[in-house]
Amino acid sequence: MSQVFEIPPRSGVAFILHEGETLEVIDPLGQQVSDLLAFNRQDMGEVISNGRTLDYEETIRITQRHRLWSNRSRPMLEITHDDVGLHDFLLTPCSEATFKHFYPDKPVHRGCMGNLAEALWPYGVVQDAIPTAFNVFMNVQVDADSGKLEVLPPISKAGDCLRLRALMDLVIGLTACSAYASNGGTFKPIHYRILTDDR
Amino acid sequence: MSQVFEIPPRSGVAFILHEGETLEVIDPLGQQVSDLLAFNRQDMGEVISNGRTLDYEETIRITQRHRLWSNRSRPMLEITHDDVGLHDFLLTPCSEATFKHFYPDKPVHRGCMGNLAEALWPYGVVQDAIPTAFNVFMNVQVDADSGKLEVLPPISKAGDCLRLRALMDLVIGLTACSAYASNGGTFKPIHYRILTDDR
Repeated sequence: MSQVFEIPPRSGVAFILHEGETLEVIDPLGQQVSDLLAFNRQDMGEVISNGRTLDYEETIRITQRHRLWSNRSRPMLEITHDDVGLHDFLLTPCSEATFKHFYPDKPVHRGCMGNLAEALWPYGVVQDAIPTAFNVFMNVQVDADSGKLEVLPPISKAGDCLRLRALMDLVIGLTACSAYASNGGTFKPIHYRILTDDR
Repeated sequence: MSQVFEIPPRSGVAFILHEGETLEVIDPLGQQVSDLLAFNRQDMGEVISNGRTLDYEETIRITQRHRLWSNRSRPMLEITHDDVGLHDFLLTPCSEATFKHFYPDKPVHRGCMGNLAEALWPYGVVQDAIPTAFNVFMNVQVDADSGKLEVLPPISKAGDCLRLRALMDLVIGLTACSAYASNGGTFKPIHYRILTDDR
């Protein structure tokens, strides 16, 4: 059994995921969001792209059997298992600016953007190079007529997981989300582990 | 009356738009798409972000009175006039890779991505730094239940225009789209002009 790592509430990590390995992202308590980034370890200018992914998968509902594509039109990760089926690839990581914008009466936090920037800094990633993340377990509803977006609490339950298989050597950024709206107003940890044989 | 410039079919341009000036993008024949990018002229690491824009405007239907936001959470352009009301900010510029993917039996074209990369090269923009463009007049329908995306011909009519006021000094990239699906299978020019007094 692979070791389970904990990302404490409102923090983030970065690590290497080798081609063929599977990243399992677990929501240990339920209703928590985890922002995920992936860079090509051999050439960090290649990074996941929501636009390319939505283009090639032809849906905004990214789930099992879909792939996360890079800005260079190459598949980086394939979703091999999904307990939840509801994630977001439209909205950017929460940040100091989004806290000021959406929660003007609450303490400012550096958010997932700040956490990702710090965790990815040792890999040579500058903040401007951080794109829209794949927001695991995030529940964003789209009104088809008006286009209106609404962030609701995730539907993930305690222990639900998402598994993504690496299609190239990657540097992964991963958070336990810091925003109020995305997780129903509470801050919880995220667990993850790396499976070498898809188990 | 400001000079009207023509972007020939399947090509692109880049130019400077000063703070306070208004860019008018015109569909001269109807049903054509124009991919738009904007960079902060003073610091080209700042660029329009679909994720930030969707976050702050809380809709995927970007139109009059909405603003296009940067990756640094600052508004770059404000839409002051919109004859059409239907544009896309989900999908990436068509490219050699998207032609091979979506039109395997048709000649490959470098697409809006190649055209934008060439036009923006003199401003120091490398291809990896080109994000999801704001796709003026592009008609992408989202099925709210399934999340499925469908690219349909634009609803723009001959002479329809979109006006965007610059909120900082910008470098703009702008194309006449090269893809088959986005413009109903034909390749047409795009016109634009720069208005210094919003007229």
